[in-house]
Amino acid sequence: MLLGHMQDRPLLISDIISFAERHHGDAQIISRRVEGDLHQTTYQDCASRARQVANAVEAEGLAVSDRVGTIAWNGYRHLELYFGVAGAGRVLHTINPRLHADQVAWIINHAIDQIICFDLSFLELIGQIRGQCPAVKAWIALCGPESLSDTDRASGLISYEEWIGAQSSAYHWPAFDEHGAASLCYTSGTTGSPKAVLYSHRSTVLHAYAISLPDAMGFSARDSILPLVPMFHVNAWGIPYAASLTGAKLVFPGPRLDGQSVYELIAAEGVTFIAGVPTVLQSLVSHADNNKLELADLRRVIVGGAACPPALLRNLRERRQLDAIHAWGMTEMSPLGTLSMLKRKHEKLSYDEQWALREKQGRAVFGVDMKIVDDEGVEMPWDGITPGHLLVRGHWVITQYFDPTGDRKDAGGADAQGWFATGDVATIDADGFMQITDRSKDVIKSGGEWISSIEIENLAMSHPDVALAACIGVPHPKWDERPVLVVVLKPGATADRDDLLAFYEGKIAKWQIPEDVIMVDSIPIGATGKILKARLRDMMKDYHLEQ
Amino acid sequence: MLLGHMQDRPLLISDIISFAERHHGDAQIISRRVEGDLHQTTYQDCASRARQVANAVEAEGLAVSDRVGTIAWNGYRHLELYFGVAGAGRVLHTINPRLHADQVAWIINHAIDQIICFDLSFLELIGQIRGQCPAVKAWIALCGPESLSDTDRASGLISYEEWIGAQSSAYHWPAFDEHGAASLCYTSGTTGSPKAVLYSHRSTVLHAYAISLPDAMGFSARDSILPLVPMFHVNAWGIPYAASLTGAKLVFPGPRLDGQSVYELIAAEGVTFIAGVPTVLQSLVSHADNNKLELADLRRVIVGGAACPPALLRNLRERRQLDAIHAWGMTEMSPLGTLSMLKRKHEKLSYDEQWALREKQGRAVFGVDMKIVDDEGVEMPWDGITPGHLLVRGHWVITQYFDPTGDRKDAGGADAQGWFATGDVATIDADGFMQITDRSKDVIKSGGEWISSIEIENLAMSHPDVALAACIGVPHPKWDERPVLVVVLKPGATADRDDLLAFYEGKIAKWQIPEDVIMVDSIPIGATGKILKARLRDMMKDYHLEQ
Repeated sequence: MLLGHMQDRPLLISDIISFAERHHGDAQIISRRVEGDLHQTTYQDCASRARQVANAVEAEGLAVSDRVGTIAWNGYRHLELYFGVAGAGRVLHTINPRLHADQVAWIINHAIDQIICFDLSFLELIGQIRGQCPAVKAWIALCGPESLSDTDRASGLISYEEWIGAQSSAYHWPAFDEHGAASLCYTSGTTGSPKAVLYSHRSTVLHAYAISLPDAMGFSARDSILPLVPMFHVNAWGIPYAASLTGAKLVFPGPRLDGQSVYELIAAEGVTFIAGVPTVLQSLVSHADNNKLELADLRRVIVGGAACPPALLRNLRERRQLDAIHAWGMTEMSPLGTLSMLKRKHEKLSYDEQWALREKQGRAVFGVDMKIVDDEGVEMPWDGITPGHLLVRGHWVITQYFDPTGDRKDAGGADAQGWFATGDVATIDADGFMQITDRSKDVIKSGGEWISSIEIENLAMSHPDVALAACIGVPHPKWDERPVLVVVLKPGATADRDDLLAFYEGKIAKWQIPEDVIMVDSIPIGATGKILKARLRDMMKDYHLEQ
Repeated sequence: MLLGHMQDRPLLISDIISFAERHHGDAQIISRRVEGDLHQTTYQDCASRARQVANAVEAEGLAVSDRVGTIAWNGYRHLELYFGVAGAGRVLHTINPRLHADQVAWIINHAIDQIICFDLSFLELIGQIRGQCPAVKAWIALCGPESLSDTDRASGLISYEEWIGAQSSAYHWPAFDEHGAASLCYTSGTTGSPKAVLYSHRSTVLHAYAISLPDAMGFSARDSILPLVPMFHVNAWGIPYAASLTGAKLVFPGPRLDGQSVYELIAAEGVTFIAGVPTVLQSLVSHADNNKLELADLRRVIVGGAACPPALLRNLRERRQLDAIHAWGMTEMSPLGTLSMLKRKHEKLSYDEQWALREKQGRAVFGVDMKIVDDEGVEMPWDGITPGHLLVRGHWVITQYFDPTGDRKDAGGADAQGWFATGDVATIDADGFMQITDRSKDVIKSGGEWISSIEIENLAMSHPDVALAACIGVPHPKWDERPVLVVVLKPGATADRDDLLAFYEGKIAKWQIPEDVIMVDSIPIGATGKILKARLRDMMKDYHLEQ
């Protein structure tokens, strides 16, 4: 095949910081530090210090592709590590500090991290795990030397400022294969050990282009961007890369994600864009509501990580006139999959019809594709009604999970055509708007039809007497499975089985109404706030439907 | 090096139309046809017919990478060829119909085009060149069979609708090397034979991502996009690809680029975005001014292809409140290089200071880089004052020109580091805003300093007696070169040499003022409206400065 005569330059993460340094050198990077103060720097300085990071990593003797772990909040030093480690051809491994210490140690060892850089907030955690991580040769505290006690120093901790301060800021970013590994995230699976997702330079840069588009996050060099989503969660959804290539001002919240702290940053730094999970955004909105505050220059809000409560979306959009957008993705897809951005044809719809679309997970951004299939893998129609297992593929979707130890080669991943099973059940309408209706393992298959456990639960939760509700499928000789509702009543509430079943009438089809209701004292909830359906099913294993 | 575990899917043009078909199937494509009517179709139909094109090209026996030429206006059939030909792994060669017939034939033969698809407007041109192009095995008229006369048919012309109508719309877009050649453009060099630029799938897709960004063209699925720049000029600046991957409505003007026709399309189709050269935009604005018309839903205007007259930019931005943006690029860079989009820091500037930036060519979009160098290749400072030869590099910049005949291997291109000399002289300010001050071959080098011939000419043109002015460098024993102004006075004007020299005083530095003024009856102007400096220098070869 005749090749084009265009430049074949690798897509590298170092190009992003080099571009920001050269073309947006004085654009600001503001960080709330663990110490509480606001720190101010620029892309120029970030680039210079990222080169010091690269020299420091090389001075530690790390080979190409060796891992550097971070246990850190969103801040400028973390950003320097993003660029310095990956730019030098090593792999940045961001670790979730909210995990149990044993899990953190397990992940560090599994990834074979050789350096760990951590915020001072996690000094105690580091003390707990240091003895368990023999491969780590340097523990770097993200602070200046003055913030470490003599005891800390005697124990071998080094301050980041000393660590990079010993290095030159002269470093020539190497050119290498754009498919080279750049960063590593472990998924917080609800069952089994966490699985590792290994991003490449190419996938990161392409994802950064895509999420910057007007129908995604829509970044410009006039924006002031505050990622509330942590840099240890799928690289803060890729925002640090996208903001840098755009030349936007970056604002980092550090450890303080409470409503007041976030509000203060928005007001002080002219923030135009925020992105986060519903709970963090809810804190901000509640603080603003309670104190009758306007959200200053804020213009666009991306809500992801969990289904957004409609009331929050309405507050942001109706009361605060913000461009609030529901988005969906996952660690295995870098993470962006879909956003609920209306199309030109939708401008003619009624307000309520537009809302129905805004509450969906949305449509795909160019670079990823999706489909829904039945249990046999047959593609289901895009009619907005028929559910199916949601599969995705694209430039920033995994091929397979990464196993650094080499003893879990069957870790799973995409099929031969690149389709990766998300584990979700969804509908897709004729305009490509996807709506997640259930988890694949939770959907109830009754007489060949699928019943969304989430829909049954949401309806139950809208009953005034219900404190908590879960719906699971129970074996049935004729229908395969039938839905059974498990309910915790509010204190003093009196609703009984028949009341709750009657509550469903007229709200869903008769065959979708639960077969039975079981009253219990408690339902198991996991660390992420989600119902542990597997444990619930186990609790209910001796329960049988009457025929 | 450890590779990331992300999907390695090629970046292909067929992915763009597949995505548009699947996710934006019913978004509209409106075309004014040669026949004069407005035609309406969708991305779904475009994709289906593009697959028929692919089958038709294969049925003609073209091998992978063989060329299909087009001589056509902006329209839906041309778009189908964009996707069908490149998607099938063949190369789309867009030909400028405004060239002389002999040049068109030369280009077709040089590119070894095997199929030529042409609009009926060019039937006469085709008649002139058919005998000169022996490698062309099919001449396809972009119309239905009813539009061809019996004579045309007898001579072997085939209508496009018959040509693709004979083919199935079932076709599986092949996957291949993303570096594979996709399309071909010849530059209209002012000297020598045109040179060929061969774009790849990868360069085209990356360019499409970049130009869609908010700080570039800013495309969303709510836009209605009208490319006034022809699809035979650097692929209409990449807009057909970018609009399709965005799912925007596309509006094609066909052959009618006069102000009234363009205005009617904007009003009728809710156009939100246009892009074109200054002369075409001036026609539109004049029509709107003269008829006291508002430009309906229009929101953003990209002006490129030539320096935008400040009065036009002011009319668009001040009178019509449009987001009018000066952009710069070239065939050798796909074409986008820079846009004059302000940064966050510029929001604090005065209106006049902002204007000074808006009139510059602007700052680079991520994916290309630039630098200015002196004659020895030493990089010059970004101070907004010091001029230098402008060099560019990036993912969509050429490595070298393409020579299908293989006998022009020294056709030129980028240097070993990827820097391509644009042939322009420019300044770059500390914020990366580039401003072109001259052509490299026209700049006057006097005593080690560079004098912009364009600046001298623009000042002369502002004198009330001057009809036309050109400035060239003339050898000088002490200063190497000194500027000499060549002037055509307006009829009846009386200004003499000393009047004109005095006119410069206080406007530029003394050493920049021309050494002499020569009055002439005419100055040679080329087909593109530009002064032919080489010919002028030749005319002046016997002129010597008095010492």
